[in-house]
Parts: sequence; structure tokens; C-alpha cells
Amino acid sequence: MRILVQKFGGSSVADLECMKKVRAKVLAAHEEGYKVVVVLSARYGQTNSLLERAYQWSDEPDLAELDVLLTTGEQESVALFAMLLKDAGIKARSFLGFQIPLISDDAFGNARIDEIDAASLRKALETYDVLVVAGFQGRTRDMRLTTLGRGGSDTSAVALAAALGEGTLCDIYTDVDGVYTTDPRLCKDAHKVDRISYDEMLEMASMGAKVLQIRSVEIAEKYNVPVRVRSTFSNDPGTLLTKEDSMMESVLVSGIAFDKDQARVTLCDVRDRPGIAASIFSPLGEAGIVVDMIIQTASRDGVTDMAFTVSRKDLKRTLDTLGKANVECSHIESAQNISKVSVVGVGMRNHSGAAGRVFNALYKAGVNLIMISTSEVKISCLVDDADLELAVNVLHKEFNL
Amino acid sequence: MRILVQKFGGSSVADLECMKKVRAKVLAAHEEGYKVVVVLSARYGQTNSLLERAYQWSDEPDLAELDVLLTTGEQESVALFAMLLKDAGIKARSFLGFQIPLISDDAFGNARIDEIDAASLRKALETYDVLVVAGFQGRTRDMRLTTLGRGGSDTSAVALAAALGEGTLCDIYTDVDGVYTTDPRLCKDAHKVDRISYDEMLEMASMGAKVLQIRSVEIAEKYNVPVRVRSTFSNDPGTLLTKEDSMMESVLVSGIAFDKDQARVTLCDVRDRPGIAASIFSPLGEAGIVVDMIIQTASRDGVTDMAFTVSRKDLKRTLDTLGKANVECSHIESAQNISKVSVVGVGMRNHSGAAGRVFNALYKAGVNLIMISTSEVKISCLVDDADLELAVNVLHKEFNL
Repeated sequence: MRILVQKFGGSSVADLECMKKVRAKVLAAHEEGYKVVVVLSARYGQTNSLLERAYQWSDEPDLAELDVLLTTGEQESVALFAMLLKDAGIKARSFLGFQIPLISDDAFGNARIDEIDAASLRKALETYDVLVVAGFQGRTRDMRLTTLGRGGSDTSAVALAAALGEGTLCDIYTDVDGVYTTDPRLCKDAHKVDRISYDEMLEMASMGAKVLQIRSVEIAEKYNVPVRVRSTFSNDPGTLLTKEDSMMESVLVSGIAFDKDQARVTLCDVRDRPGIAASIFSPLGEAGIVVDMIIQTASRDGVTDMAFTVSRKDLKRTLDTLGKANVECSHIESAQNISKVSVVGVGMRNHSGAAGRVFNALYKAGVNLIMISTSEVKISCLVDDADLELAVNVLHKEFNL
Repeated sequence: MRILVQKFGGSSVADLECMKKVRAKVLAAHEEGYKVVVVLSARYGQTNSLLERAYQWSDEPDLAELDVLLTTGEQESVALFAMLLKDAGIKARSFLGFQIPLISDDAFGNARIDEIDAASLRKALETYDVLVVAGFQGRTRDMRLTTLGRGGSDTSAVALAAALGEGTLCDIYTDVDGVYTTDPRLCKDAHKVDRISYDEMLEMASMGAKVLQIRSVEIAEKYNVPVRVRSTFSNDPGTLLTKEDSMMESVLVSGIAFDKDQARVTLCDVRDRPGIAASIFSPLGEAGIVVDMIIQTASRDGVTDMAFTVSRKDLKRTLDTLGKANVECSHIESAQNISKVSVVGVGMRNHSGAAGRVFNALYKAGVNLIMISTSEVKISCLVDDADLELAVNVLHKEFNL
């Protein structure tokens, strides 16, 4: 049995016309001899309108009940799409998250997958040609409904492909025809890449290239799921996410990612004593705030400056949390007009000199670097919002993308 | 633990203001010391709009998928209402049909309850003060979603009360303050009754008094659930459905019901041979058409006329089905401009003469009787649409209601 998982997002299921395009993709795969597992999101805008309604009704909606509300979105999509498939003479049925079951922890609103028992799907594929699965949703072990967080349908799709076993392909359909070297809106030379490694995609995704939810890439890497990012509106083969191969390693840099959603917080004159970092970052962790880059300057006279970045939406909560935590420092500064630009490539593992080329190119272009952080396969620089477009173009050119 | 089941229909959960009225009812019961199980329908109009959408998308939507679609309606209601209760400081959580579980057969769209395991609800009531349960929905033994047919939330509520065990009260909230002797829109003397027996209510319900779904009354009778029909918009104690008692039997007639949704089919000159009735009614049964009154005239020269009534919406299908079944008769007639009026009362069990009074009163008023059928506790007459209002008023007066 050759199984293909196809995932379609909210704009692909927005209305009957869109759904018919999706059906054409599914029928084509069926005709190629695949058993197809279609993973659908809620139609475009529905999740937001359900959220709006909940927040109109309640100042602080219960998160578990919010998930009961939100899961109706994909439920509608899969019911209607299964009807359309049957109208086309295809043996199809819908599966909700709890019916699979896709079992998650109980972090309502942002649950993580614990386990997928794919036996029921495999059994259903003996009877049906196409299964229409609600993405983004699961259930806890005690049968309460959960959602997997924004973009969770990508994660559902890849995790299902992993659970369905080796050889299962996973096509993620989106409104672009693959992964680009950088955002074409910022850099006219940006172009699609045919292949990209999981690690590179992870860095690209975490840097704000919002093609795939980052957790879906982690799962793809862990279970070695071949994932293709493709367009609903074309027949382009898209970009294949795969393990690194030697061809990839010969390329130093495969993409330039960036993230405008950055805010920087600086704690000035922090007393430099053991445990001080924990006293700052533990309360933020407990408040569910994700801290990205962290930089501590060298200590002088027993005090130091500590700077870090968070999402802009979390800035106010970050400052509130730090205020309550009573951190020993002279004062706290914050800035929102900053962006992060990152150079990503598995080739950096084996080639030195990339960092020097990044800093030099930006320096020559007159771009001021506010903070720097690096990993094995990426170099990230925090720059002024005003410098972002220039920085992306300079780096895109520097590495001949 | 004193448990009260409260059921609220679509108009009671139509918007935030309505839901707040419902919350006030729930809070009042909570303050009286009850553990409350609230059963909710989809908000007014939602089920119809989901159905419309499905029928726009598909000429013949798959019934199982239609149930997946329709169950989102109550899911929305219970999630939002549970949020409202939590905002008021009440320990509450929602339960969907599959979570209880309410297990039904697989007659999608019109499923019947097989079993309710109330253990999870009882356990939840140890932790929570109020459980908010989605009415109208259940699941099959193999985890597919089902709906219980129009008005199924009444059935959910009464069946839950039965499953929760002896002593559980069930209040069905509606937009009228109880059961009336007849429809006040047709008869100005109509008035609310304080008590009515299950049997009488069954006849009233089956005769078109749409206060309660008929199956809910059957379940209430079978499990002896005390059911009160009450108004969301007043504090009236409503009408209590209960076993017959001697007080009731002293009243000959407790109500006049009627049903305008009638169509009559007459098969003329049917060959009167053994098995002829089966050859007519078996195909109708297989087509899911409910036949109500059946009358066969005395046979003459080996032929007879066979007349029966169906819902108006089923008339076309009935004629199609009979056409295909090739029934041996000279021709088939049908009429839609007819209504049924029924006199209902458990007192008829022990008193004779009611039928005579019905026919005599209608005769004196000039109402022509098209068909007649009787049961232990009711007498039904088919009359011309134009005569219906007159017939109701004449009978209401005849029995001093």
C-alpha cells in the first residue's frame, strides 16, 4: 500500500471552488495509485472568528473549552470535503482527531502530540481510498479535545505520515510553490530551492519563514519523513525536505531568513552573582514567554548588562513579569523597532569563514549589528527595522543565492 | 447528590443575552443545592444553515458526514456556555456526546440511543458543579458521530436523567410555559395544565403538539423520569409529566391536539387478496416513510379502497414508491389540504361515550370527518384544513377545557 499524506491549509478550503481544486489534487494522487490521507485545516478566517467570539463572550475564556470551540473548524472542513469526494465516486470518510486517535498532552491551545495510533487509519485504508483527517486537533488520554497551536495542521500531517510508517510521503500544500532562498517581496533575486535539509528548514522556520510549523519539521527529521512543500495552485514539484546529502554540504548557505516580530529587552547594571540568570528567565518561562537571543556583556565592577529578545506580542507581559520578579538591576530598557536576519546553511558545519563574510558584508553596506547569535547551521544578526531589506539583499548577493 | 437536568433549546442559546438568562436559571438551581447537568441545542438557525450549506455543496450529502457537520452546532453552544459559567465562578466543564459516551445505533441523522454510560458524568459531578452536555448527538460503538433527529436534545436530556438514576429531575425549557389544552393561537380558551400523564403527552406530541420530541416522552415513561416543561422566560413551575394518578383519571379529556402536516393517499379498487397490505406498506417502510392512519373499506366484488395518511413532505416520495412497487389498483388519489384533530385523555380508558360526543359535536358544527382513528387514550379525526380551527374550538368547549 503506497500512502500519500496531503495537507491543505485554510485558504485551500475557504469555499466550494477552492475545495474543488483540492479535490482535483486528491483525485490525481488517487489515480497515480496512492491511498490518500488528506489533512485539512479550518477554512480561512474561521479559527479567528471563533476566537473573536469567545473573547467577546468572556474576558479570559477557559482554554479547554476554547479547544472544544476551535475544533469545530476542521470538523466542518472534513465533513464537507468527504461529501465532495463521495460525490466524485470516491470511497472516503472523515476522521476527527479523537477518532484516530491522535493523543496529546493537556496543554490546551498548544498541545503536543504524545502518540498516534495509526492502526484504525491503516484498517480504514483497506476499505476507503481516501481518509479526510481534521488537522490541528487531538485528544488527551482522558478524552478531552485539544488543539496543537497555530499551524498545527502541518504537525498533524507530518506526524500522521510518520505514524503510517516508512515510505509514506507527505505533501504540504500552501500558497507558494516551495521554499525560497529568501522572501521575494524583500529581494527580487530570491528563488525557489529544489531540496533543503531538515536542519536548514528548522532554522528557516524558526527564523520566521512561515512556510511550515517548526514542530512539523522536527517530527519530519526525527522520523525521516520525506516532506514536499508545494502549491495548491500549480503543478510545480515544490521543495523536498530531506536528510542532508553530500551535494547539500557543498553549498555553504542555502537561504536568508528574517523575522520582523522581534522586541529587545535590556536589564542594565544587573548584579553579577550566581543564579541571577535563573532569577530573570525562570519567571519568564513560567509565564510561557519564549526568549530567543540572550546576550550578557562582560562583568565590570560586579555589574553587567543582560539583553534578550522576545516576540513583540510578548513584550508587555515580559516587562510586567520582570517587574513582579523584582530583578536586581538599575533599570530596564526595551525596543521594538528591530528585526532579525539569519544566514542558514548546513555547509557551515564544514566550512569556516561564513561568519566573517556575513559581518563584513553588512559592515560594508553600513548595517549596524545590535546583537549576534550563531548555531551550527546559522548566523543570526539583530538589526534595525530600517536596515532589514538592505541586509537581506546584501547577504543574498554575498552568498550567490 | 441531588441532580437536576436542565435542557435549553436553540432559541435559548441564540446569543450572549439569551445565554445569560440560561446561566441565571442554572445558577438558581445550583444555589438550591442541585448538581446541574445542562443539555444544550445548537443556537437557533445554525442546524438549518449547516444543512443548507451541505445541500448547496452536494446533491445528496453522505448522511454520516452530515452528522459530523451538524454536531459542530451543539459543540459551539456547550463550549461557549461552559466559559460563561466559569466566568461566574462555577466549576463547570463541557461534555460532547461521544465523551459521555452516549452510544447510539448507526442510523445517521436519526439515530436511536442504545446506551448511556453515566459513570463518567457521575464522577465528573464529584469535581464539577455543572456539566454542560451537547444534546442531539452521540456516537456509534465504532466511534462515528451521530445525531438523534429533530428535537433530539429533548431525548438526550430525558435519557441522561434516566441514566443518572432514580430521583434525577428533568426540566425541559422552551418558549412556552408548559403544556396547553390546545394551541392558544387557534383557541382563545386554551390554558396551561399543571400535570399531564406520559401517555397523554405521547398522544399530544404525536399529534403535532411540538413541545417535546415524542421519543423523549417514551423514555420518560419507560424510566419514570419526572419531567417538567417550563419557560426560559418566566418562573412558572410549568407542566409536570408524570405517571397517571387517580386525580387524572377523573378528567375525561385533557387536551385537543392537531396536526396540519397531513397528506392523504387513496388506492382505489385494490384487489382484496392476502398480502395486499404488505405489498403496499412494506415498500413505504423500506423507504423510511412513516404511515399514520390506515383505513380499508369493506371489500365489494373482490376489490376495496385503501387510504392512509403521511407527512406532506413525504407525499411525493410516497407516490414515487407506490409507482415503483406496482400495486394492483385502478388508480391512486392524493390530497394535501387536510388536518388531523385529536382529543386526548387517559380518562377515556375508564369512561365510554367520548367518541360519541366528539362525532356529535363536530357533526352539529358542520365539520365533515374524512377519516377516524382511535387508541385507548385518544380519538383522531381527519378534517378539511378549512374546518380545523372550528373543530378545535368546538371540541375544546365540548369537554369543558
